[in-house]
Amino acid sequence: MSEPRTAPDREPDGPFAEVGQRGPERLEAFSDGVFAIAITLLVLEIRVPPAQDLATPGALVAALGGLWPSYLGYVLSFVTVGVMWANHHNLIRLVATVSHGLMLANLALLLAVGFVPFPTALLAATLQTPTGQIGVLIYAATFIGIALAFNLLWYEIRRGRGVLRANVSRRSIDSITRSYRLGPPGFAIAFLAALINPALGMLVIVALVAVYLLPSSSGA
Amino acid sequence: MSEPRTAPDREPDGPFAEVGQRGPERLEAFSDGVFAIAITLLVLEIRVPPAQDLATPGALVAALGGLWPSYLGYVLSFVTVGVMWANHHNLIRLVATVSHGLMLANLALLLAVGFVPFPTALLAATLQTPTGQIGVLIYAATFIGIALAFNLLWYEIRRGRGVLRANVSRRSIDSITRSYRLGPPGFAIAFLAALINPALGMLVIVALVAVYLLPSSSGA
Amino acid sequence: MSEPRTAPDREPDGPFAEVGQRGPERLEAFSDGVFAIAITLLVLEIRVPPAQDLATPGALVAALGGLWPSYLGYVLSFVTVGVMWANHHNLIRLVATVSHGLMLANLALLLAVGFVPFPTALLAATLQTPTGQIGVLIYAATFIGIALAFNLLWYEIRRGRGVLRANVSRRSIDSITRSYRLGPPGFAIAFLAALINPALGMLVIVALVAVYLLPSSSGA
Amino acid sequence: MSEPRTAPDREPDGPFAEVGQRGPERLEAFSDGVFAIAITLLVLEIRVPPAQDLATPGALVAALGGLWPSYLGYVLSFVTVGVMWANHHNLIRLVATVSHGLMLANLALLLAVGFVPFPTALLAATLQTPTGQIGVLIYAATFIGIALAFNLLWYEIRRGRGVLRANVSRRSIDSITRSYRLGPPGFAIAFLAALINPALGMLVIVALVAVYLLPSSSGA
Repeated sequence: MSEPRTAPDREPDGPFAEVGQRGPERLEAFSDGVFAIAITLLVLEIRVPPAQDLATPGALVAALGGLWPSYLGYVLSFVTVGVMWANHHNLIRLVATVSHGLMLANLALLLAVGFVPFPTALLAATLQTPTGQIGVLIYAATFIGIALAFNLLWYEIRRGRGVLRANVSRRSIDSITRSYRLGPPGFAIAFLAALINPALGMLVIVALVAVYLLPSSSGA
Repeated sequence: MSEPRTAPDREPDGPFAEVGQRGPERLEAFSDGVFAIAITLLVLEIRVPPAQDLATPGALVAALGGLWPSYLGYVLSFVTVGVMWANHHNLIRLVATVSHGLMLANLALLLAVGFVPFPTALLAATLQTPTGQIGVLIYAATFIGIALAFNLLWYEIRRGRGVLRANVSRRSIDSITRSYRLGPPGFAIAFLAALINPALGMLVIVALVAVYLLPSSSGA
Repeated sequence: MSEPRTAPDREPDGPFAEVGQRGPERLEAFSDGVFAIAITLLVLEIRVPPAQDLATPGALVAALGGLWPSYLGYVLSFVTVGVMWANHHNLIRLVATVSHGLMLANLALLLAVGFVPFPTALLAATLQTPTGQIGVLIYAATFIGIALAFNLLWYEIRRGRGVLRANVSRRSIDSITRSYRLGPPGFAIAFLAALINPALGMLVIVALVAVYLLPSSSGA
Repeated sequence: MSEPRTAPDREPDGPFAEVGQRGPERLEAFSDGVFAIAITLLVLEIRVPPAQDLATPGALVAALGGLWPSYLGYVLSFVTVGVMWANHHNLIRLVATVSHGLMLANLALLLAVGFVPFPTALLAATLQTPTGQIGVLIYAATFIGIALAFNLLWYEIRRGRGVLRANVSRRSIDSITRSYRLGPPGFAIAFLAALINPALGMLVIVALVAVYLLPSSSGA
């Protein structure tokens, strides 16, 4: 979308080059949009207490306090999606041209990221009910799916001819591969922990998100 | 929005050139925004089950299972809009300058794409009711409209003077034209199939979307 | 956001230039976002009919037919906001550096554009009720406000030192000024017509939007 | 996302440079998205009056008049978030490369900005009830949080090695630091004023937003 289209390492001038080759700029723009919207829609799940709770300050404070699962869901999902955006950013920077497989893998990732507001709302709705465990399990399962989609995306970047930029070192590639491989089993552990105890499952998820906030894990 | 405005093949310096000529960068940015938002709003149609379904795990699992039309609608519309975005991307890359007709055709396309969350929600709401057939028919009709809008957009790109980039080969043009011509009759067949049997209509839609996921159909 | 920051006609290298001068790229990106989101949120106002209308095909067809004010509002507001986006695009292309006044005028315009989903929903809700006139009046008033904001924006572009690009001809400037001056009285006529008869007011609005779809009116 | 990636002051060609160094383009794009969406979602909190208020023009006018807290909340939050966007724009323009700390500080800021629709809706819902004071207090507290996040962001820009662009003058830096330091105590005064009297608290918030609309405060 913004780099000069004649940049030699992005859009070669061979026959049909204008159709067969493309840089990642609009893929980035579209993905940025989906990440930004998914992260911002999260706030819509925090609902203003109904009219009867606005009758006295005490009732409102109690009602607002009772929304803590919504606040927790907002913060946790916002930070997680934000970290995923940073990871996505770091991955796509390594892309020279967009293959069809990369396009599909990216769409699969966005499908999972765009879904996050639903399990977040479900988590918030169930946390204080007898169905809290189901909320945590589905929340963890969503992140297993996203972690798998990230691995698929990275696989597509590495395997396509000319997709990965030529100047990325083997060491960088291996470091990213290692970091990404930990995602699915990590969230699977959270899922299993939630089977034993929902609060334990939440704790593992929070810990995982905290780990992904560390500089080393984002490939940067 | 991003290419140097003095790039010779984009913004000639003739009189009034600053008003009469424009590259597709902001058209892309605006369209990317509409596609990204339409695709992300789809998740808002998946509603968390009401409080009474959160009383027991069994009730919640049943309620979440009963939401399958919403999940189906989310995935189907997300993938379809995602593929449309990729097609749009491929088309606009061939544009050198934006004509007024192209602007209007693009607006017509965005009007149809921005509408998708409504027939998707209607499809999900009706699939398990006696009105499921209407839901499928309106869903198919929406995609007929989008396919027609894509043909109009492509027509406007080809017919305007200086709209199509000079270096696009005749073979690429013909290949895209052929691929786009199949869209309206394809979804019309889905519509007709839904008239006979709603499930059959859905099957045709799913098959069409799967075909559009193949590399050859997106012009890439 | 995307042009090389050292481009001489955009970001001079004088003292404090990095703070005091700025090109319109991020203003464009932010405005594109607001336009794209406002236009896409419009679909959320078209509500799926309630469960009782899904009992028989006849009831659903009647319910969907009864939503015609929502479809009308969607199409009318989508096209109007889309045309406004194109106009905004054409205006900002003439900007070399962003002044503080331009920033504020742009914010005022976005405030009005971002408000459009509310009068659109109000119009759709009231059109078939005894309060339809109020819906049309508020809808027209919103567009008077937007037309005024466009004139303010254009005024700020012309009056700031170095805001308007140096290579814009006097003839282009005058042509845009003339075109923009017609906006506020045009929608004021729609408002007055709606005072006499709501349907007449709607007709004037539809006619105005159709006129703005003509190539000559968008400055392109 | 848009500047040539080989620009010497942005992406050095040292070993692992493609992973370890990055310009602020996609950070800007993602942040622009979140600001634009948060600001545009505000309109969803202005609800069309229920059906019974659409029975007579008098009832509708009264109902629409009764929505004044929603209009106030919309305008106030829109302008405030818009000014914050401008400030964010001005800050990020000074960034040469994005550090991990900057990424996290930016995420914290977006977390607070994305939250704004909730306290805005709460303010509108409570303003005419006995709980209005709580609404104003939470609204003010949100802006204290955002002001703190801005100071953290600016701190991260200054402290990281190579994060701040080399050509930013000491005078510019000091001017921004002074301006940002006033934010948290300013909104804290609004909070304290609201403890005494909610209307007084609102007045201080409105005054602060008006001050931030002045050219000198945005660092431009």
